Amino acid sequence: MIMQRHTRSTPQGLPEGRAPLRRPGARSVHLDAVTLECDVTHENQRLGAYETRIKAAFDQVIPLVRQLVSRQFEADFAESAAEEIRAVLGCEPPYALLQHAWTGQLDVKALVSHLTFAVYLQFVTDAIQARPLAHPACEAFQRFLTECGYHRFDITPCADGRMAHVIRYVLRLPAELVRRKAYAGAVFDIEDNLAKWAEVELMRTQESGPSATQYLKVVAYHVSSVDCETEGCAAHGSDDQKAAQAGLDALDGFKKAVAQTFHQDQAVEGLLIGVDTATDAIRLHLPDANGVIALDTQIRALDCVGMDRTAIQAHVETQASHAAPGMQKLAARLIEHNLEQLRYVESRHAGVYPDIGHAERFIGIGVGFDEIQLRNLMYFGYLHTVEEGAADIDVGLKIFKGLNQSRGLATPVVIRFDYYGSIPGARARAAKRAARVAQALSARYPDQFARAEIHYIQVSRDLETREPPELLGSNLPSLIEEIGE
Amino acid sequence: MIMQRHTRSTPQGLPEGRAPLRRPGARSVHLDAVTLECDVTHENQRLGAYETRIKAAFDQVIPLVRQLVSRQFEADFAESAAEEIRAVLGCEPPYALLQHAWTGQLDVKALVSHLTFAVYLQFVTDAIQARPLAHPACEAFQRFLTECGYHRFDITPCADGRMAHVIRYVLRLPAELVRRKAYAGAVFDIEDNLAKWAEVELMRTQESGPSATQYLKVVAYHVSSVDCETEGCAAHGSDDQKAAQAGLDALDGFKKAVAQTFHQDQAVEGLLIGVDTATDAIRLHLPDANGVIALDTQIRALDCVGMDRTAIQAHVETQASHAAPGMQKLAARLIEHNLEQLRYVESRHAGVYPDIGHAERFIGIGVGFDEIQLRNLMYFGYLHTVEEGAADIDVGLKIFKGLNQSRGLATPVVIRFDYYGSIPGARARAAKRAARVAQALSARYPDQFARAEIHYIQVSRDLETREPPELLGSNLPSLIEEIGE
Repeated sequence: MIMQRHTRSTPQGLPEGRAPLRRPGARSVHLDAVTLECDVTHENQRLGAYETRIKAAFDQVIPLVRQLVSRQFEADFAESAAEEIRAVLGCEPPYALLQHAWTGQLDVKALVSHLTFAVYLQFVTDAIQARPLAHPACEAFQRFLTECGYHRFDITPCADGRMAHVIRYVLRLPAELVRRKAYAGAVFDIEDNLAKWAEVELMRTQESGPSATQYLKVVAYHVSSVDCETEGCAAHGSDDQKAAQAGLDALDGFKKAVAQTFHQDQAVEGLLIGVDTATDAIRLHLPDANGVIALDTQIRALDCVGMDRTAIQAHVETQASHAAPGMQKLAARLIEHNLEQLRYVESRHAGVYPDIGHAERFIGIGVGFDEIQLRNLMYFGYLHTVEEGAADIDVGLKIFKGLNQSRGLATPVVIRFDYYGSIPGARARAAKRAARVAQALSARYPDQFARAEIHYIQVSRDLETREPPELLGSNLPSLIEEIGE
Repeated sequence: MIMQRHTRSTPQGLPEGRAPLRRPGARSVHLDAVTLECDVTHENQRLGAYETRIKAAFDQVIPLVRQLVSRQFEADFAESAAEEIRAVLGCEPPYALLQHAWTGQLDVKALVSHLTFAVYLQFVTDAIQARPLAHPACEAFQRFLTECGYHRFDITPCADGRMAHVIRYVLRLPAELVRRKAYAGAVFDIEDNLAKWAEVELMRTQESGPSATQYLKVVAYHVSSVDCETEGCAAHGSDDQKAAQAGLDALDGFKKAVAQTFHQDQAVEGLLIGVDTATDAIRLHLPDANGVIALDTQIRALDCVGMDRTAIQAHVETQASHAAPGMQKLAARLIEHNLEQLRYVESRHAGVYPDIGHAERFIGIGVGFDEIQLRNLMYFGYLHTVEEGAADIDVGLKIFKGLNQSRGLATPVVIRFDYYGSIPGARARAAKRAARVAQALSARYPDQFARAEIHYIQVSRDLETREPPELLGSNLPSLIEEIGE
């Protein structure tokens, strides 16, 4: 068992055991490798610019409001504040809220939440329309996946915001192809996943007939090599061993449910990934040829730093000699991808994130949120009802108690249900579901709502268009006014 | 439009327009018909004996408790009451509850609910082990269904208890083969049904490869030819037109959802059935060859009284000339079956039920309840969460406000989630879900719980065995004691 439960950061701030990202002797010897090198650098720049831009937009909100607070009793406050909000954030200001400031006091909580939601809506609109994170090699990845023996890559990461970038950044995979369903502690709902699996398989069987490839279900748990005893997975009390075991149990349960229900022992393959949220370094727990995963065998990306593709492949083959060749190939590629991310974290943060702990800007609950591929931006609970997702929301609200409520701010919650517009009635049903969840949320946390500690918006969008998301409701009067307009 | 919105009962208590069940000239001319005649009589006797026995068991509870109440302060009350309960109902008596009577007063509400649940558990155990409603011709029906062009018969009746016998009695179909998911007003959840449909189709494709047959989704709404303005469907305000239209809309939505999501225009066929809850007479709204159902074209079973199979077939072909031949054939058979039920109601109740209105003995919520095939025994809400099923539960509790609370009794609610024992963890998940729903129920109706107006039990069973259902929890102390034992 090599779980690093008690690793402490070194005096230099680097977790113990981290190798420098470039080994002295490592060189790019092939032209291919040089091209790859350029591609990686370019891609890292692109991803970095995007991350910086989006986070900056969210992080402008509080300083801006802070500044406005000091001027709230000035005669032209409403007008000048409105102008400044428009200039800084590029969004329509909440006039009524600003105008009410002089008679009492500026409702700071409401203003911060309002502007956070406004930035969120801008960000989603931009993501839908400009596709800033479009993967350069979607089709190639799908082909590669098929070569490895899988037709689908479905991942359940923990709901933790420090895992929200696992697809597009940590593993460098196309978010267009990889399904994500986040659950607190990565412990997913087996029955829900079984139903979704059946839909995927049915569609595939109908489109291309039976095939020998498998459905790959990936579970990504997380640990922290810095402050591991407090910054691990909250749902498992920062116990790395528990987090890994819970992910494995969920995987096993799902595989067995498919096998028993559909009499297909080999339909699903499982893969368990551990992510160090301080550095984004991954460890892989590969299944053997019979699909059995042993937690104490792991392949660490950090051990492959400086290796080229061939060397990584050889390393994986040695470390996981009992795994199927396709799984070895996929694992090697995931490590290669993760090395790109390690270089990214190296160049931006000297290898270790400054925000070791939680720093999410808002909570997202529901189904959708495909555009959220950035670290520590959103705490995500995949759910259809508050009743079933309550444990996930509890964890999220606990996190935001520390992040927002402790400094007098509300927790912004985005309730979102997307839909396919070509299905008659789908929009109405998504809207109804969002309203139901909003209602259930306020019923479950009456005290926090009474103290205005939770602000929410209901949002929905048609996945078949590139139209901006639709704002359907909120408990913020300033936003309800906008909807009414 | 021939919806009988304003039909009034005639002085004789028979709804207008009801023909006598035997036309003067109708005779059994073939040997086949004679055999059929005998079979029907025998089957009706069997079904009747079962209905009488089960309802009598439930209906002994209140007279028994009434009688016990008068003796509650006698010295040997606990012992003699226990003995009597055992003798009359055949179940273990709640000793503690009986023993507490002398110090205060017998908790009548709790005792009635306790005994109702005890009878329910006996009834389910008997149904599982003795299979009293086993259909005599399961395989023949499946073959017939296939001949008609369908591989599955999936029905959504209204949650109303007066529709609970629609499969085994009203339509005389095998409950072993026909899926049921009841919703208030027969307005089913399209996304849930889509997921279940995909599971069925996937399993079928894997077992037998693609075929040209369709999945038949049947919606059964209800009207009442007696007191139609108050005894129709509560979820649609007893507006028959609305009830029919809502069923049709749900069917259309489902068909289109399948067509859009899986690109299969012809995968699902819809059939709309109206049931007169006063008489069990059905009307069928058949789809034309393109699957389009027109509400104003209907075939009434009452118009076929006295006809033999050939005549019914000819009648259907004339009335629904645009329907596919397979659908005509199926419709004719359903009418033939329904005529058996009309004879049943004729012989037992002179053609019109004495309990025109609601007379359910308890509410059932969750997934399961396959053994409930009796009229007016249980109000059924198919649901996974209270959050999604709240509208159905609201309707049910409203009904029981009149039935039970008005006379000082609590509403007994069975929360049930069955599972397949061979799937690892399935039992634990079913138990967890039942507990979650119990918790959500008490959270949603705090006032009624505070006044002890709702008693519930959590029940689960392994569908792969014939073991009795497992009692997992309750808010009745007398039952919690039993679980603890």
